[in-house]
Amino acid sequence: MPTSRPLPSWNDGPARAAILDFVGAAVDPASPGYLRPADRIAVFAHDGTLWCEYPLAIEAQFIGARLIQLARQDPALRQRQPFKAFLDEDLPKIHGLGFRAILQLGFVTHAGITMDDFTRRATAWIATAMHPALERPVGECTYLPQLELLAFLRRHGFATFVVTGGAVNFVRAFAPDAYGVPAHHVIGSSVKLQVDLHDDVAELVKLAEPNSFNDGEAKVRNIALHLGLRPVFAFGNSDHDLAMLRYTAGGRGPRLALLLHHDDGAREFAYDREFYLNPLDEALDRAAAFGIQVVSMRQDWAAVFSERGAPAPIPDGRP
Amino acid sequence: MPTSRPLPSWNDGPARAAILDFVGAAVDPASPGYLRPADRIAVFAHDGTLWCEYPLAIEAQFIGARLIQLARQDPALRQRQPFKAFLDEDLPKIHGLGFRAILQLGFVTHAGITMDDFTRRATAWIATAMHPALERPVGECTYLPQLELLAFLRRHGFATFVVTGGAVNFVRAFAPDAYGVPAHHVIGSSVKLQVDLHDDVAELVKLAEPNSFNDGEAKVRNIALHLGLRPVFAFGNSDHDLAMLRYTAGGRGPRLALLLHHDDGAREFAYDREFYLNPLDEALDRAAAFGIQVVSMRQDWAAVFSERGAPAPIPDGRP
Repeated sequence: MPTSRPLPSWNDGPARAAILDFVGAAVDPASPGYLRPADRIAVFAHDGTLWCEYPLAIEAQFIGARLIQLARQDPALRQRQPFKAFLDEDLPKIHGLGFRAILQLGFVTHAGITMDDFTRRATAWIATAMHPALERPVGECTYLPQLELLAFLRRHGFATFVVTGGAVNFVRAFAPDAYGVPAHHVIGSSVKLQVDLHDDVAELVKLAEPNSFNDGEAKVRNIALHLGLRPVFAFGNSDHDLAMLRYTAGGRGPRLALLLHHDDGAREFAYDREFYLNPLDEALDRAAAFGIQVVSMRQDWAAVFSERGAPAPIPDGRP
Repeated sequence: MPTSRPLPSWNDGPARAAILDFVGAAVDPASPGYLRPADRIAVFAHDGTLWCEYPLAIEAQFIGARLIQLARQDPALRQRQPFKAFLDEDLPKIHGLGFRAILQLGFVTHAGITMDDFTRRATAWIATAMHPALERPVGECTYLPQLELLAFLRRHGFATFVVTGGAVNFVRAFAPDAYGVPAHHVIGSSVKLQVDLHDDVAELVKLAEPNSFNDGEAKVRNIALHLGLRPVFAFGNSDHDLAMLRYTAGGRGPRLALLLHHDDGAREFAYDREFYLNPLDEALDRAAAFGIQVVSMRQDWAAVFSERGAPAPIPDGRP
């Protein structure tokens, strides 16, 4: 049931108040915090900001599924790394590969197929895969308070973008349904593409060669490439997002940068500095100095996930 | 005055009929030509498709103004190329540089400044510059029938994008006002960017190094990078657009690809195969084979430009 209280899954507190104040001012032409519609640009990191990334990024699980499939076709691979680590679900070994190497594995094992075929493969996997620890489909590992926040921002004239370290085509495969964010509002890591002709029809084929790893400062450069202006609102959760949060917080005029702290071992997971695929360390130390509002999952969120099988609270229509 | 006839500046004929049929079907759930809103993606080339590019691309005029400025600061440059060609308005010499070299000149002479400063510089120039042949401000060299078409598409749920061979930041400086297309719906040629800190605020500085020349097949790859899906509607005017038109026309389901032919020496200019900055040659020969509808400026457009000083017929709001 809809409620008249905006952001119902957010507890009263400094984070919710900061969001309501910022958005309230943005739409009030009499306020010094007013923003023209063209400037209402909000960016969200993805893994750990919009959906669960622990104990392993869901995309890494998708890449692992592909490695396991390849090992089935060629059993000799079972004893080789990185296949063995994924077959054994050996998290320290998988984490040890690091963010870029895991992404690169995805690039290599999904190369040589068309962009459209990749999208179909990702969509099919997400439709059936279960999260290894949460006992829910990966598609239901999105955070309810963030779904409410995305919709709330759009209702107030903001354009909402996902700026992911993950592969852009992976996130585009479900962002429209999961977040109400169209494919062209997703910025992410990417490979080089080749235009091939099949039966006289041009198809885009994914190459194994990286085009951009969208982490750290690259997020700022890719925001500039895709959007051409500085966002006024940014939400992240790790050191990979610090440059983007700082870039957003540092502009003139009204702005709001938020950093999600995973401190809720009861309802989700509690981790920060030691999670080395996507650590929250320097960003936690420097948040106050950069004017970044820290959001405590434990204190600021009344709920973390939607009820199992509940319809997602994402309004239809263009963001 | 608004009229009840859609696309009032388009004459009855095959081009207008193709557009009305395509859009009418796209929004009719009972039609085989129906398109889900998420698939209603329209892309337009820029120079020569949305505004005049003859006898010289307007951006080349902007770059020339910068060269002339530099030559004023250092008169020794006046006798050197390419400065001399721009100072003498020597069109054959300027054309002889070629598309990429002129763009590269713009990259070099506008490097080392922030993206925001570049935008201010471009905006200020466009606000006062006159077209050398049309006796109207460059900002009024946009084509009235295309402004109507952009608005018509958006009223029917299409997201409209500009895919320009020109510098993305140049076109972003005026696309929101001129076309109702927000900055993040402009894809173009780009330079590499560097994140610099000034007084602890992160700024994006333009480097002289090209990131992408957005012509030919690169337009297809950049559409894939930015949009993640195949457009259903494309409008171009030159061989630089052939790959994009072919990519759009070649997908499954309903689609419409259009090619503007500059055959109107009375109201604009008549040129095609010999205009070697942006020739229309191979695309004209192959249009029929690829299912591309040729639009005759002379026959299909009832008007080319808005009346001088008339308010632009672009609706406000998000595309």
